[in-house]
Amino acid sequence: MNKQNKRKQFHNLISIEKARKIIKPHIKTQTQEIPIHQAAGHTTTTNIKSPIDVPPFDRAAMDGYAVKAKDTYGAEEDNPKQLTIKGEIKAGETPKQKIKTGETIEIATGAVMPAGANAVVMIEHTDQQNQKINIRKPVHPEQHVMHAGTDITTGEKIIPKNKTLTPREIGLLSATGHQTIKTKKPPKIAIISTGDEITTPPKKPKPGQIYDINQNTLYSAIKETGAKPQKYGVTPDNKQKIQKTLKKAAKENDIILTTGSTSAGQTDILYKILQNKLLFHGLKIKPGKPTFAAKHNNTLIIGLPGYPTSCLTIYKTLIEPIIHQKTGKTQNQNTITVQTTTKIPSVPGKKHLIPIGITKQKNKHKAYPVYQGSGAIKSLSNSEAIITAQPNEKYIQKGETKKAILHSKHLQIPKLLIMGSHCIGTDILTTNLKQTNKTIHTGSKGGLEMMTQNIPDAIGIHLLNKNQQYNKGYIKKHNIKNAQLIKGYKREQGIITQKNNPHNIKTITDLIDKNITITNRNQGSGTRKLLDQKIKQIAKKRNKTPKQIKNQIKGYNNTPTTHSAVAQAIKNKKTDAGIAIKPYATKHNLHFIKITEEQYDYIIKKTKQTQEIKKTIQSKKFKKQINQTPGLKTTKKTGQKIE
Amino acid sequence: MNKQNKRKQFHNLISIEKARKIIKPHIKTQTQEIPIHQAAGHTTTTNIKSPIDVPPFDRAAMDGYAVKAKDTYGAEEDNPKQLTIKGEIKAGETPKQKIKTGETIEIATGAVMPAGANAVVMIEHTDQQNQKINIRKPVHPEQHVMHAGTDITTGEKIIPKNKTLTPREIGLLSATGHQTIKTKKPPKIAIISTGDEITTPPKKPKPGQIYDINQNTLYSAIKETGAKPQKYGVTPDNKQKIQKTLKKAAKENDIILTTGSTSAGQTDILYKILQNKLLFHGLKIKPGKPTFAAKHNNTLIIGLPGYPTSCLTIYKTLIEPIIHQKTGKTQNQNTITVQTTTKIPSVPGKKHLIPIGITKQKNKHKAYPVYQGSGAIKSLSNSEAIITAQPNEKYIQKGETKKAILHSKHLQIPKLLIMGSHCIGTDILTTNLKQTNKTIHTGSKGGLEMMTQNIPDAIGIHLLNKNQQYNKGYIKKHNIKNAQLIKGYKREQGIITQKNNPHNIKTITDLIDKNITITNRNQGSGTRKLLDQKIKQIAKKRNKTPKQIKNQIKGYNNTPTTHSAVAQAIKNKKTDAGIAIKPYATKHNLHFIKITEEQYDYIIKKTKQTQEIKKTIQSKKFKKQINQTPGLKTTKKTGQKIE
Repeated sequence: MNKQNKRKQFHNLISIEKARKIIKPHIKTQTQEIPIHQAAGHTTTTNIKSPIDVPPFDRAAMDGYAVKAKDTYGAEEDNPKQLTIKGEIKAGETPKQKIKTGETIEIATGAVMPAGANAVVMIEHTDQQNQKINIRKPVHPEQHVMHAGTDITTGEKIIPKNKTLTPREIGLLSATGHQTIKTKKPPKIAIISTGDEITTPPKKPKPGQIYDINQNTLYSAIKETGAKPQKYGVTPDNKQKIQKTLKKAAKENDIILTTGSTSAGQTDILYKILQNKLLFHGLKIKPGKPTFAAKHNNTLIIGLPGYPTSCLTIYKTLIEPIIHQKTGKTQNQNTITVQTTTKIPSVPGKKHLIPIGITKQKNKHKAYPVYQGSGAIKSLSNSEAIITAQPNEKYIQKGETKKAILHSKHLQIPKLLIMGSHCIGTDILTTNLKQTNKTIHTGSKGGLEMMTQNIPDAIGIHLLNKNQQYNKGYIKKHNIKNAQLIKGYKREQGIITQKNNPHNIKTITDLIDKNITITNRNQGSGTRKLLDQKIKQIAKKRNKTPKQIKNQIKGYNNTPTTHSAVAQAIKNKKTDAGIAIKPYATKHNLHFIKITEEQYDYIIKKTKQTQEIKKTIQSKKFKKQINQTPGLKTTKKTGQKIE
Repeated sequence: MNKQNKRKQFHNLISIEKARKIIKPHIKTQTQEIPIHQAAGHTTTTNIKSPIDVPPFDRAAMDGYAVKAKDTYGAEEDNPKQLTIKGEIKAGETPKQKIKTGETIEIATGAVMPAGANAVVMIEHTDQQNQKINIRKPVHPEQHVMHAGTDITTGEKIIPKNKTLTPREIGLLSATGHQTIKTKKPPKIAIISTGDEITTPPKKPKPGQIYDINQNTLYSAIKETGAKPQKYGVTPDNKQKIQKTLKKAAKENDIILTTGSTSAGQTDILYKILQNKLLFHGLKIKPGKPTFAAKHNNTLIIGLPGYPTSCLTIYKTLIEPIIHQKTGKTQNQNTITVQTTTKIPSVPGKKHLIPIGITKQKNKHKAYPVYQGSGAIKSLSNSEAIITAQPNEKYIQKGETKKAILHSKHLQIPKLLIMGSHCIGTDILTTNLKQTNKTIHTGSKGGLEMMTQNIPDAIGIHLLNKNQQYNKGYIKKHNIKNAQLIKGYKREQGIITQKNNPHNIKTITDLIDKNITITNRNQGSGTRKLLDQKIKQIAKKRNKTPKQIKNQIKGYNNTPTTHSAVAQAIKNKKTDAGIAIKPYATKHNLHFIKITEEQYDYIIKKTKQTQEIKKTIQSKKFKKQINQTPGLKTTKKTGQKIE
């Protein structure tokens, strides 16, 4: 049997719209009766009427005196009309007296109007003398009286069917004496993760295992919709165990979501259990192709992909709109309009759901790509939303307007976006910022590219130009508009090795010639550029191409995006050496061989919001914290504009 | 003692900003440790770091074959390289074998890379022959391998301090094996209503009592912020009972909110209990002047005004921003920018918080006034948000841009806004609309005014013009742009009396001359205009002014806004007669004397959204439902454009 065919059993890929249509009838619309104070956010299933008048009686709308209006006619400030006080009506009391011509009763706001009275004189327009009051301003009939039923009448429709309730509707229900209300019942949803490779704390992952992510992300995403999630743990690839969990979950829920085990491969036991009960298997979409739906024990099961970004993306686009509809919310909740800052490549022939970061510029939401690979949690955590490229789009063009589905209603678009080279100094900077901010490590060159596309508010860089000067001229060279270079600090860059430098590494040459493995850095990082510059020099001396030298270095393609990752790899003895800045060697108690002292500066956009970044770099607190960090050092020029 | 002075003890009115500053230090910032799947919407109190590498090992990023990259060099589609399969590694397994030159191991996505291999060939680029595979495309070193720690490194800061968590951060926490997280703890808030005039169901209100509204509106508004509300019921104006409830609430909560009993009047016992413990009493704001704060049993008590609209308004502007801050949310949550459609009068000398309705026109949010009096729940329920007029503003000008605080995050701006005359036929119309819609009863003339200001999408009217034609010419007369008159239906208008017409009323003249009380309608309603036209004719005949005739009619100023209210007033024997349409007489089994048959039509804006209104009027279903309603009748022209 051909293995390739064995694994690829997606006969009928369908569109996500069709999948939604297939699923929808299998999710019941149910109602519940709940106390009204718990009902905000829920949606009515019927028109709600008032069983009473509001107010239920004619009431005083002001503190003052209940009168016959005609008794006040002609009253003036210096020529008052005098009336005899016959008593007092407090709010909540039933008036027993009736007033006659020439009489009045003191009355509180909200109190029942006494018989015989047809208006209220405000207390401000009266003064009292013994048992008489002087009225210094006339009132017309019905003035300051609120009639029974003028606010709401018995039988009036106060809330229509299919209305999502807010405190104002809760107010209407309270005023009219409702205690409970019928609303759409949110579905109960089971979440099951599958796979031998997955575990959850407090268990330690065995070699080859990773922690489960999807149960928790789905749980919190489902909870946001108002539906009721329940976690059923991780089920290993074992037929009996999966069947047992499915049976229990089906009994207790309206929908079951499983993650992983969807791709019809040889270990995909879940797929085998359900293969004769499938409603569909395979979506014409990226990511999420192996998604399936099945009906098992009369309960709808939806199988989501195992990769966290794919899993949440398919949940948000396939399932959440149906839950919103079943619970009476607009399907477009949590969508915003964004404009792309750059061309984003897509996959022609199928829909492509693309995670994007969002930044706010001049009151417009701008989208930028953040994709770091389908297995990377950073593809999810660096993004704010998902946009869709249609099957006929090879690219999403720069400047295109797209509807974006936000990952969460709790999501805040950060005020400041900082990219560029990873440095502990930038961590110090961002921790001191008061405005919400987000940092993405792109490396110095990546940061410059992003800056050219007008995406970040600031980038940290450490790049030697042709004149062997740090960071100068790049604003002009990259045609970056409306930005300035602000002096940062000096930092020691060098080779990190294990504690006692067991391989006795002293120079970059040793990384090539000694039979060791290194951890390199990502393309676009200044640190990688530093290594490549050194390699170029060595290659020239040895009469070789730089590529030849690179091929000689084991681990040249180990390319994490942070200094911290380099230090960790060495500390954990996964590799022998790497290039990084001194603070990380110190932090992890590793050996450090200084190669150079570089200048780490910031290119900052000139906007109102970025003022805080500049001011923070200039602050005493920031400088003090920098100088307390081994290998970092401010200079007299720190915080000054260089160009 | 002068009563006026006795009641007005607001010595030091302060601004709402100052009040917020006074309150803030009395609300503690607390932390809690919660399971991560429950943490979405909560805010971190510390920087969160990863205790592990993600992935924790070098893993295959694709289903395929783990190889030494150089073994694949030169492979082509029609000239494959052949390797020997030495086994298989599933996800979650620990590989035991090591591969040598010429060997390969089948590997699943996510599985641990075997020693000796440095790349993965995708299964799509291979085919199997017995224990060999043909590789038809070369790979470079590290291709389709995800290195340990490339996604997240041990010690890396994964979530900063003061970050509100969403499913993506829950994903980061899960991936790194966190089970719980420290977040800001939402405060516990007690809600107490006070006053003898207030009760709650299932109790029936005694004469003079109304149902409590504020406990439920505050409960649902507080819950939206994530804080923990608890209701303590209605406390009557009794010193011992109030003190007992306060003591219990103080023990169990961080903050106590009371409503009512704030105005330092003679029944305001709560105020007297707290008067020596006040932090402030009286705000320079409308509404909400009598608001106070006090410290009692070491707990902060805030006294909110009793009127529901005032109560919720002060909660939203004074208290909610502090709760948002203490729980780590942006203070500007649920604010949007609106533009006023009309001049809105304000109160100079103090801040004025004004409830407004919001409609969306061409992607802009437009604000219109909805105020119906401070005691009216409709002031709250017809509005979507609050805007602020500053003390120096006599008016908010038409077209002004204002920040509006939405009543709720669950609030949906209705797609269609319908105003004008109240008719059961319009209820039928709106019930049939699929787009979200909102109806405000303004009467025919009120509707025309609103239409002139470009506020509603449609209005229902029944107005006789100078030529004794219904509804024609008003679009032009009122200079309404981009609108059309669509034929509605005929309806019988007449006098409603109690069941057997005990006063033997037959004509409008009887309403004047027989010693009875009527319920009239609000100014601006077509029904009131009908009565006024008849009065004018009678006045002319009797050689009197219309005003003189009106003064003769008892209840001329009983002016509810709906036909339903008129019928209810008569049914409940509060008045003897009124003018309304036949359906309401039939519905309540009352006597009906036909005066006229009028034409009820719709003026509809020409927009894409209002297409549905027109189509619904033209639909068979609508026409059928109209003709099933006593007193209503469609004609051949129903649904046609008249002008």
